[in-house]
Amino acid sequence: MREIGIGILGFGTVGAGVVEGLIKNGDIMAERLGARPVLRKIADLDITSDRGVEVDKSILTTDAAAVIDDPGIDIIVELIGGCGIALDFVRKALSAGKAVVTANKKLLAEHGTELYELADKNNVDLCFEASVGGGIPIIKSLREALCANRINSIYGILNGTCNYILTKMETEGLAFDTVLKDAQEQGFAEADPGLDIDGFDTAHKAVILSSLACGHPVEMDAVGVEGIRGISSTDIKYALSMGYRIKLIALVRREASELEALVAPMLVPLDNMLASVNGVFNAVMVNSDLDDTTLYYGRGAGRLPTGSAVLGDICDIVRSRADGVACRMPAIPASGKRITLKPSAQIKSKYYLRIDTSEQETFDKCASLVAECGIAVESIEKYTESSCPGPTVVIITGMAEEKEIETAVEKIRALDIVSGDVVKLRVMPV
Amino acid sequence: MREIGIGILGFGTVGAGVVEGLIKNGDIMAERLGARPVLRKIADLDITSDRGVEVDKSILTTDAAAVIDDPGIDIIVELIGGCGIALDFVRKALSAGKAVVTANKKLLAEHGTELYELADKNNVDLCFEASVGGGIPIIKSLREALCANRINSIYGILNGTCNYILTKMETEGLAFDTVLKDAQEQGFAEADPGLDIDGFDTAHKAVILSSLACGHPVEMDAVGVEGIRGISSTDIKYALSMGYRIKLIALVRREASELEALVAPMLVPLDNMLASVNGVFNAVMVNSDLDDTTLYYGRGAGRLPTGSAVLGDICDIVRSRADGVACRMPAIPASGKRITLKPSAQIKSKYYLRIDTSEQETFDKCASLVAECGIAVESIEKYTESSCPGPTVVIITGMAEEKEIETAVEKIRALDIVSGDVVKLRVMPV
Repeated sequence: MREIGIGILGFGTVGAGVVEGLIKNGDIMAERLGARPVLRKIADLDITSDRGVEVDKSILTTDAAAVIDDPGIDIIVELIGGCGIALDFVRKALSAGKAVVTANKKLLAEHGTELYELADKNNVDLCFEASVGGGIPIIKSLREALCANRINSIYGILNGTCNYILTKMETEGLAFDTVLKDAQEQGFAEADPGLDIDGFDTAHKAVILSSLACGHPVEMDAVGVEGIRGISSTDIKYALSMGYRIKLIALVRREASELEALVAPMLVPLDNMLASVNGVFNAVMVNSDLDDTTLYYGRGAGRLPTGSAVLGDICDIVRSRADGVACRMPAIPASGKRITLKPSAQIKSKYYLRIDTSEQETFDKCASLVAECGIAVESIEKYTESSCPGPTVVIITGMAEEKEIETAVEKIRALDIVSGDVVKLRVMPV
Repeated sequence: MREIGIGILGFGTVGAGVVEGLIKNGDIMAERLGARPVLRKIADLDITSDRGVEVDKSILTTDAAAVIDDPGIDIIVELIGGCGIALDFVRKALSAGKAVVTANKKLLAEHGTELYELADKNNVDLCFEASVGGGIPIIKSLREALCANRINSIYGILNGTCNYILTKMETEGLAFDTVLKDAQEQGFAEADPGLDIDGFDTAHKAVILSSLACGHPVEMDAVGVEGIRGISSTDIKYALSMGYRIKLIALVRREASELEALVAPMLVPLDNMLASVNGVFNAVMVNSDLDDTTLYYGRGAGRLPTGSAVLGDICDIVRSRADGVACRMPAIPASGKRITLKPSAQIKSKYYLRIDTSEQETFDKCASLVAECGIAVESIEKYTESSCPGPTVVIITGMAEEKEIETAVEKIRALDIVSGDVVKLRVMPV
C-alpha cells in the first residue's frame, strides 16, 4: 500500500490528539483511503515530556526545518500556534510544495491573504478544518458541501469558554467573575482569559468564515469585536424571561454588495437552534441561497475532537496525493466579485435595553425617549429587583443602527429617574 | 476551461431544482472548481410540461439510454426514484464507467449491497448526499470529515412530514388525524402518506446510515420499523411535562460487535439538541470515537435544498474528473470487520408507559407490577384527564428489553383498575 508521509510541527495537546488518533485508527484510515498516512517526524522544542501517547523516539526532533525539508514527508501539520515561527514554517512548507494542515486561527486571521495565495500559487492544498469549531466540519461544509451555493449569512457560537461561562451564569444565577474563576480552576478557561472572553478568539474564527463567505480574504481589523465581560446574570435572567438566551455570536452576513462581520454578545431567540447550544459546545448556522438553513454542532475544542478535524484534513490530502493530485481545491472558494466591509456601527439589529430607575412611573418616559430617536419599541417589561430603588425597565427595540441606539441611550441616561447605567445588547439579527 | 458533461434522468421536483441551481450558480461553481459542469441531456417520459426553469428543448429526451451512452456525459444524475427502471439505469451507468449521483434512498436501501460493489468494481464514484437529510451534508461528513473516526452511534430525525405533524400536534394540541389532513392539504404530506408516517422512508435512510456506520452494506429487513400513527397529543403533552419531546427517531448504534438499527417514535430529553428540531427540519446526531458528538441540521426536503445536495456531489465529481480521477473514494468507508445485526426487540431502552385507570389508588399497583418484572421505575406521575374515569399513571422505566416491557404491559392490562389500553413508547437511549 502506498504511504503518504506526515510531519507534525508542535507536539502539544492537539498534536498528541492527532498522534493518538493515528495510533488508534491508522489501520482503518488506510483501508478507507487506499493509502496509508505514516507519521514520519514530529518537531517540538520539548521532545522529552510525556504526552500520554506512545511515539517512537527516533521520529522526534527539535529541528522543524528538517521536517519540512524531508522528501519523505508530503503533509506538514502546523500545530505550533501564533504568528511567529508558525508563519515562517507554513510559508516554507507551502513554497516547498508540501500540503499544509493547520489548526492556527490566529495565523489565518492575520496572514490568510498571503497564505491562501501562496498555497494557490504553489498548487498545494492548505486545509484548516480545526481552526474553526474544533471537531465540527464547518470548513469542509462551506468549501465542498455548499460549493453550489452563495453564502448569505453565518452565525456562530465559536468559543467554548465563553459559552460555558454564559451557560453556567444562567443555570446557577452566578456572577461573571465567580463563574470565570470556577472555569479557570476547572481548566475550561485560561489563566489569561482575555483572548477568549474579550472575543478575539471568536473574531479570528469570524475572519476565516468571512473569507469563506466572501470568496476572498478578509482582514482582521474589519471585524467589530465585543466580549462578554459586561454580561450580568440579571440580563441573562431578563432576556430569558422575554424569550432569548444571551450567546457570544460571530455574525457574518452579506447584505447586497457589503459584508457585515461582527463578534458580540447577542440575544438569541429561544426557538433558534443556536439558543440550545449550551456548555462548551460550539455551533455554526449557515444560510445559503440554495440550501437555505443548515447548522453544524459539536465540540469546539479538546485533544481528540480537534485531532479528528486535523486527521480529516490529512485523510483528504492522503486521498488526493495517492491519486497524484497535489491540490484538490483553492483554499478559499471564489464567489465572483469582491465585497466591501460595512463598519460594524452600521450593522442594524434590534436591541435589548435595560434601564435601572429610581421612580415607579418610568414606562412611558423610557418608551417615548426611544421613540423620539426614531426607534420602534417592540416590547417593554418592568421588573423589580431588590438591589434597585425603582423598577427596572427592559425594552426590546425595533431595528436600529448602533449610533441611533447610542443617541437614545444617552438621552435615557440623562433622565434623573435613571439610577444606574443603561445596558444595551444586540438581538441577533436573523 | 474544461467541461464535465452531466446527464439527468428524471425531471421532477429535484431535477428542476438541480437545473435551477446550475443556471443560477453555474458560473461560480466553474470558478470554484476550475472546470465547468455542463448539463448535456435530461431524460424524462414527460418532456413537455413546464418545470418552472428554462431549459434548451434540444437537451430533453425520452430516451434514458441515450443519456447514459452519450460519450460527452461523465456524470449520470438519477432522480427517477424507486427500484424499477432507476435500478436498471444506475447499473448501466456504473458499468459504463460513469459517475453516478442519486437521491434515491429506496434504491440504496434495497439494492445498496449490489450498487456499492458495482461502483467500486468499475472504479467510479457513487454519490448519494441527497438520499438522507435533503440539504444536510451528513453523507459527506460520515464519509470524509469523520474519516479518521469509528462511528459509535447515529440518531436522526429524517422525515420532515412526521416531524411537522408531531410539532403541530404539540403546539396546537391537535389529534394525529386532524394534523395529517391539514398537512396533506398544505402539501407537507402525500395523499398516500404511509411511506412517511409508517416510518419506511426513515427506515430507508437508516439503512444507508447503518451501512456508513458499519463499513459494509446493511439489509433493509434488519431494521425494526414503527411509525407515528399511534401517537396521541395526550402522550405528547405528558411526555413534555416530564421533560421529553416525542420524535420519530432513526437509531443506529454499535454495541460491542453488534449493530442496533431501529426506527420508532421516541421520547427525546429536552436538553438534547434533537428535541429542538421542529417542523419540517431534519437533523442527524453522530457520536464517534475521536470527535465525540456532532450534529447536522437543515432542510430534509425541498427542490432547492435537495438540489443543493445533488449539486454538491456533482461538484466533488467535477473536481475529481478534472484532475483525471475516476473514483475518489469507495461508496461505503470500511470499518474493519463485519458486524452482525441485533434484533430490534433486544435493543434496550427506557420506556414511557401511560396507563389509563378506573380507580384512584393505582400508583403502587402499577409501580409494583413493573418492578415485579425486574424493571426499575425511574419516575412516575399521575394526571387527571376528563375523558378518563380514573387517574392516568405515567411511568418512565429503567433500561429494559422490548420483551420485558411487553410482559409488564400484559400484566398491567390484566388489572381490572386499567380502563383503556396501555401506551408504551421508547425513551431515546443516549
